[in-house]
Amino acid sequence: MTRNIREVEESFINFVKKMESYNEAISLMFWDLRTGAPKKGVEQRSETIGMLSSEVFNMSVSNEMGQYLDALSAPEAKSELSEITKKLVEESKKEYDKNKKIPADEYKEFVILTSKAENAWEEAKEKADFHSFAPYLEKIVAYLRKYVERIGYEGHPYNALLDDYEPGVTVDVLDRVFGELREKLVPLVKSVTEAPAQPKTDFLFEHFSKDKQKDFSLEILKQLQYDFEAGRLDQTVHPFAVAINRNDVRVTTKYDEKDFRTAVFGTIHECGHALYEQNISEELIGTPLCDGTSMGIHESQSLFCENFVGRNYSFWKKNYSLLKEYSNGQFDDVTLGDFYKAINVAGPSLIRIEADEMTYSLHIILRYEIEKALIKGEIEVKDLPQIWNDKMEEYLGIRPSHDGEGVLQDVHWSGGALGYFPSYALGYIYASQIKNKMNEDIPNYDELMEEGNFTPIKEWLIEHVHQHGKMKKPLEIIEDITGEGLNPKYLIEYLEKKYKSVYEL
Amino acid sequence: MTRNIREVEESFINFVKKMESYNEAISLMFWDLRTGAPKKGVEQRSETIGMLSSEVFNMSVSNEMGQYLDALSAPEAKSELSEITKKLVEESKKEYDKNKKIPADEYKEFVILTSKAENAWEEAKEKADFHSFAPYLEKIVAYLRKYVERIGYEGHPYNALLDDYEPGVTVDVLDRVFGELREKLVPLVKSVTEAPAQPKTDFLFEHFSKDKQKDFSLEILKQLQYDFEAGRLDQTVHPFAVAINRNDVRVTTKYDEKDFRTAVFGTIHECGHALYEQNISEELIGTPLCDGTSMGIHESQSLFCENFVGRNYSFWKKNYSLLKEYSNGQFDDVTLGDFYKAINVAGPSLIRIEADEMTYSLHIILRYEIEKALIKGEIEVKDLPQIWNDKMEEYLGIRPSHDGEGVLQDVHWSGGALGYFPSYALGYIYASQIKNKMNEDIPNYDELMEEGNFTPIKEWLIEHVHQHGKMKKPLEIIEDITGEGLNPKYLIEYLEKKYKSVYEL
Repeated sequence: MTRNIREVEESFINFVKKMESYNEAISLMFWDLRTGAPKKGVEQRSETIGMLSSEVFNMSVSNEMGQYLDALSAPEAKSELSEITKKLVEESKKEYDKNKKIPADEYKEFVILTSKAENAWEEAKEKADFHSFAPYLEKIVAYLRKYVERIGYEGHPYNALLDDYEPGVTVDVLDRVFGELREKLVPLVKSVTEAPAQPKTDFLFEHFSKDKQKDFSLEILKQLQYDFEAGRLDQTVHPFAVAINRNDVRVTTKYDEKDFRTAVFGTIHECGHALYEQNISEELIGTPLCDGTSMGIHESQSLFCENFVGRNYSFWKKNYSLLKEYSNGQFDDVTLGDFYKAINVAGPSLIRIEADEMTYSLHIILRYEIEKALIKGEIEVKDLPQIWNDKMEEYLGIRPSHDGEGVLQDVHWSGGALGYFPSYALGYIYASQIKNKMNEDIPNYDELMEEGNFTPIKEWLIEHVHQHGKMKKPLEIIEDITGEGLNPKYLIEYLEKKYKSVYEL
Repeated sequence: MTRNIREVEESFINFVKKMESYNEAISLMFWDLRTGAPKKGVEQRSETIGMLSSEVFNMSVSNEMGQYLDALSAPEAKSELSEITKKLVEESKKEYDKNKKIPADEYKEFVILTSKAENAWEEAKEKADFHSFAPYLEKIVAYLRKYVERIGYEGHPYNALLDDYEPGVTVDVLDRVFGELREKLVPLVKSVTEAPAQPKTDFLFEHFSKDKQKDFSLEILKQLQYDFEAGRLDQTVHPFAVAINRNDVRVTTKYDEKDFRTAVFGTIHECGHALYEQNISEELIGTPLCDGTSMGIHESQSLFCENFVGRNYSFWKKNYSLLKEYSNGQFDDVTLGDFYKAINVAGPSLIRIEADEMTYSLHIILRYEIEKALIKGEIEVKDLPQIWNDKMEEYLGIRPSHDGEGVLQDVHWSGGALGYFPSYALGYIYASQIKNKMNEDIPNYDELMEEGNFTPIKEWLIEHVHQHGKMKKPLEIIEDITGEGLNPKYLIEYLEKKYKSVYEL
């Protein structure tokens, strides 16, 4: 019996490793498409990606997979499995059960729909014409309303979507934490907006050559101990980090010669994602557990780097002179204090991806409220522009002049990715909870920053977050670190303290 | 019945397209590994490549493939199939029949053996120690001797290996053409070596910056109508061209700042490979027929560009001033005539990949004679260094001082790729036959070169070679162009004429 279970376990692991091989190939193709693949080859490449993706899907619901899961889920088998195999079985079973509920032809239709919808969205955004996009979004919402019923959920139907991105986080939880956040942030934004002491920022926008920005970014990546033997930095249009495998985790950035912040803070952000993936426990290599545990925890790592490192005063105490060396004199007459304030400038803006850390969560909360109501059928697609604009005015005090800078700004809905947005705000909350706890363990955090000694910080993150990969669920990570669940208090405290200081309130 | 065949045909085509998708992913991984993939990720990447490769192998001998081939090879089916499907069936059947004869475990053992042998070879070459490599090569030869018996052959057992690289070309043919070539080249080499009028070459080796070499190479690629929207130029250690798909055909090069020829002639060579792949008929896209028809025909295209374009006097009449612009003054006092002679300098040398067009085939003939005798069991691995050195002396008049610059110089044998070398010399012969015929159709070839007008030449190559992909076999291509079979006469005439002129004989 035991012998038999060992054999099944081995075959099962080889099977999921094969799926991961396909995913590795897909990731490389994804990276390649976004960093310089010749455009005429894209059509064929897309077919290849589709072919491999559907192979992975087919394997996830195959009879072979079903047999492994049956055999390894049996009580007499379970007790003999390693922790890793148990987790692999659990994750694969979740995927299997969910994917089995989706009729293959409906799924395929949905994939085609979203691929068309993305094109339609791009045009609609360009022309600020919501009506041309609405029919696609209506079909997507209709599919997702049916999808959540098929998949099943407890409580709110939107929970079924949340589970794809942030397992364990539900509407009940989000209503509470996002409510609290909104209540505190809206007045903070108002007082920052009205503060007399607005930081000077004109010096940020002088010419900073692309090559020099790259050299500086590489220096910072080194300081943050990004492993260049297990990664590389490339240029792209929409920056991202991607783990092609655990020892090949690439970051990308984009350069704006009129605003160095795009590349520098972008690189630091992606570095946070990359450090996570580069430091997952080696024993998970080749399995689907060798991955960030959720979108939110992943974002917590990138935001930790971007905000608690990249926008930290002590970090710039160490690095401001280095930045000056690479720049073309734009900071010569700017004190460190003024520089620090300038890179922490905040205030209402229309576009999420350009938002600062104070207002960002409000952009997310708005989307969350809309998505939730859409899935439940409380609002309809045709009403979105009005709702969007009203909420923008309520939360941020500004109103889009057209839908291109309003409801049409993000790609996510056209891809059917409802349920994804909350992860971004969760990333801020998680990061603040993590930082608060780290302050106890590493009370000399700012001194370390000032010395450019990132080692203890990185080691702490590896121990508490990175190494676990998908072996722990997102809320397990947070609870094990902080002893409590999701709590927006620390983010609120951090933002209030920081912005009261920057804006001399 | 017809309805049924149509359905089988469609399923079969989807099946081979899926195999090609996997091959596309493998090609991208191959390119990536050689152009900057981080080294720590290589181990996992190799596993992924192995996983996808064995999947392709398994599909090629699967029951599903067997059923398609049975159904589509039946006489009543054949008459209903398109020419492309017929060819696809023929190629797949050849692969199926061959792969079926190889026991999976033996094949796997061989793959492991060659992967170890490649490491052993690298060390042995470094230390010029043939004895440490010999045991590996003995096993490889033993496997291949068994392999050719399994596969079967007509005439000489080496024919079974030749068929993998150059279908239709046999030992009988090669003995004749290589014999003729050797007979004419050996005295030519001798008279060139002893010629009093040796070209000056010192000016070739001055500092030429990498960036400027790259800019010049890009100019030349444009002139040769390499399609940059369906490709890109990258840097690597061992240059190659790779068709990831038909509209994504990448070239790579390497830069030696002390010898611009490496990059410039290397790029032109790889461009020849790339033009072939970029111009295969669009109706073959996604199928295994969308590929060069053989190693030899592929090499004929790269050598056509390298020698009949890159080393052509009129080409440099057009481009010498451009080269001067990019260089740092090294050609200021050098006439076009002297430059032309310098880039056509020839003479005996020990290393194949550094050999000139006059001596190159002799390096190949030596390897061919050894391989053929090894496979037939007429000689043994232990005798190779002696045989190698004797032949070098006989054909080229020079003798390696150690095995690192002799029998150990090439990687091919450690990978089990016996049968491959002849393709390089066939490339020279094919290219000369093609050029001879082109001279009739395009009598103003040199004028076009002088004008930088490559269009009629490229169109001619597309019509007669490129577009066909694997729809024609190598010798069909040559016969359709020239009306005759493989004939070394044109290569001999070309070399004799050229080198008598360069060396004023």
